[in-house]
Amino acid sequence: MIPAPGIIALLTDYGLSGPYVGALKAVILGINPAATIFDLSHGIEPQAIEEGAFVLGQVAPYLPEGTVCVAVVDPGVGTARRAIAIRTSRGMFVGPDNGLLSAALDDKARGAAREPTSSAVPVPAGALAVELTNPAYFRHPVSATFHGRDIFAAVAAHLSLAVPLEAFGPALSDVQAFPPWRAVPQGDGSFASRVVYTDRFGNLVTDVRASDLPGTAVRVRIADRELSGLQRTFLDGPELVVYAGSSGFLEIARRNGSAADALGVIRGESVLVMVSQ
Amino acid sequence: MIPAPGIIALLTDYGLSGPYVGALKAVILGINPAATIFDLSHGIEPQAIEEGAFVLGQVAPYLPEGTVCVAVVDPGVGTARRAIAIRTSRGMFVGPDNGLLSAALDDKARGAAREPTSSAVPVPAGALAVELTNPAYFRHPVSATFHGRDIFAAVAAHLSLAVPLEAFGPALSDVQAFPPWRAVPQGDGSFASRVVYTDRFGNLVTDVRASDLPGTAVRVRIADRELSGLQRTFLDGPELVVYAGSSGFLEIARRNGSAADALGVIRGESVLVMVSQ
Amino acid sequence: MIPAPGIIALLTDYGLSGPYVGALKAVILGINPAATIFDLSHGIEPQAIEEGAFVLGQVAPYLPEGTVCVAVVDPGVGTARRAIAIRTSRGMFVGPDNGLLSAALDDKARGAAREPTSSAVPVPAGALAVELTNPAYFRHPVSATFHGRDIFAAVAAHLSLAVPLEAFGPALSDVQAFPPWRAVPQGDGSFASRVVYTDRFGNLVTDVRASDLPGTAVRVRIADRELSGLQRTFLDGPELVVYAGSSGFLEIARRNGSAADALGVIRGESVLVMVSQ
Repeated sequence: MIPAPGIIALLTDYGLSGPYVGALKAVILGINPAATIFDLSHGIEPQAIEEGAFVLGQVAPYLPEGTVCVAVVDPGVGTARRAIAIRTSRGMFVGPDNGLLSAALDDKARGAAREPTSSAVPVPAGALAVELTNPAYFRHPVSATFHGRDIFAAVAAHLSLAVPLEAFGPALSDVQAFPPWRAVPQGDGSFASRVVYTDRFGNLVTDVRASDLPGTAVRVRIADRELSGLQRTFLDGPELVVYAGSSGFLEIARRNGSAADALGVIRGESVLVMVSQ
Repeated sequence: MIPAPGIIALLTDYGLSGPYVGALKAVILGINPAATIFDLSHGIEPQAIEEGAFVLGQVAPYLPEGTVCVAVVDPGVGTARRAIAIRTSRGMFVGPDNGLLSAALDDKARGAAREPTSSAVPVPAGALAVELTNPAYFRHPVSATFHGRDIFAAVAAHLSLAVPLEAFGPALSDVQAFPPWRAVPQGDGSFASRVVYTDRFGNLVTDVRASDLPGTAVRVRIADRELSGLQRTFLDGPELVVYAGSSGFLEIARRNGSAADALGVIRGESVLVMVSQ
Repeated sequence: MIPAPGIIALLTDYGLSGPYVGALKAVILGINPAATIFDLSHGIEPQAIEEGAFVLGQVAPYLPEGTVCVAVVDPGVGTARRAIAIRTSRGMFVGPDNGLLSAALDDKARGAAREPTSSAVPVPAGALAVELTNPAYFRHPVSATFHGRDIFAAVAAHLSLAVPLEAFGPALSDVQAFPPWRAVPQGDGSFASRVVYTDRFGNLVTDVRASDLPGTAVRVRIADRELSGLQRTFLDGPELVVYAGSSGFLEIARRNGSAADALGVIRGESVLVMVSQ
């Protein structure tokens, strides 16, 4: 069993203005007053499961060992979608079974589909996923619309107290996952990519991994513009710069400004990346 | 005396961009470095006392026993409005005496007035409210405009160290409170309600309590629309759905969207709820 | 050596929506799981170094002794700008050497230049500044664009474990600092000031210190308006009020509203303050 140092990380689309994030933390501290809680993000666009999964994937590699990560972007709350917890070599994750917890799985486990929708994939060997069905670990009464508070936060707090994962419900053979964010080369060696995330600075994150590029003579087409060259940082170039971002994806940035605004693009925009070997 | 595990919860209208919330936490940790601080919300609309009181009321039932809750929405700072702390069976609350701390009191103690303004109500038997007058527990010099930092945060830190409430100042016989958010049935059995909160998702929270409904054949009139039926979740219905929200109030939501935007309404909007028994 | 109670304060321009702040905290807790982390602000305008330095200066006096303060507003990341840590009587600060850490230095050490740009100033006697060059305390691989995660957060975590500052790299004789926010009287006794900060309430913070005023018969000219008198709080006056704010600077506020909106001004606006002795 992974040690449980009592660290719990939170990611939701609740926003910070209302009572919802506070309610999660209150429930957690009521069960484990010694928990160390920290926020990954509560600013995921409402109900944007894929965005939440992507942001979680950006942070997951840095979580301390033993962290219990609670993620809630849950447009299907109260329906037949399952509530799950999954433990893999990448950590322990709790949330709805809608692909949000994809960061628990490596690229291979997440399959080869290319659509930005989640699908059921087998739980890999060595991992354990359970459906959260044991009411002994819920807060009661369980609301039909706030499983974050009544199921996920409560379960995470018990996990942080080292309750074994097996106690929370039956093991699952499959879970929902998004395919890897990893543009694949086309016949001509180019990558058909898209903007999978735009950050506060207006930087555009694509799903092309720098490590997959066969060379550095890169040309990028986006929104009727063509950008040339691969820079080391967003300062090393002309107005619009292509570089390998801090998580290994190709990013497009604007020196001292917002590339999203300059190009007039948002999440989902198509990007074509061409590389001369 | 309630045990003091050193958990302190914060709710303000300070926003998260500026130095104010950081200053509260710095002062608290300077007095009690072992305190566990967590945020309920800092996104209350500036100076919106009733909104702050409502959000606090939504979270208060989940606060761990012994939590010291600091709330600051304080347009009257530096005037004759009193600084108070109040301990009841619902917890320990610190802040301005302007109704913001209404969550400390149960419905009965908060009186029967129906206007959305606060008024003085007697401190109930078994509760203790004190005016914060003892400068030994303030940070000095005390600013005329930032009692959050110099009085409320400092007092909360001392309370979290188990200083007895009586030490902070004289007992009060009354405190300001808003009337309960609880629409009362009219002569014909309908409820004249209003939107008391809109959340990030655009869900509209009314002050009708689901537990007060004599039946489930509900019709709701809002903004020239009439909605029929009471659903279990915001997914179980047509475009606009009425259901009992996670805190027991009737809410109006839009499937995969914002009811506030769809109806063009904001906090305060009138809502008529009719029930056939 | 200053004691290290494990308290770490964070200030960035990362915003709270994306993965960046979560990554800082994850890295810190991975190195020091017992650290107490709290946020000063992550809402600094993107790349607004002076704004970040000002907000940090507003909070720094209240930080608990031994706090390690990490600040990252870093448009020059990946360039020749140095990564530094500095310890003074005001605390321990970690971040880019671009003036952001000016709060580490008192007014005298920060020089007499009046332009709102940073310049190199000598590290004062009794203080120690080092360039962060020892890779043993970095997270690897070090990204060219995310030193917040890979250098500053990691270094701060090690500092919170009481690693001596000397271990992180060579001592520096100078660091970048902004001149003090302190308008100086002109020949006629008036102060040529500017708005150095606008807060969430629309209050305008100037760089005139109340303690520098030779009298209280104050007239303020801003945006073609003239305001008279110095009030105790923002409630004690007509529509627009001048008063000494909670950090000692003259502020302009609007009773129950936003002075910034009412005057149509933003950060940087010129303000003339005249005082009759």
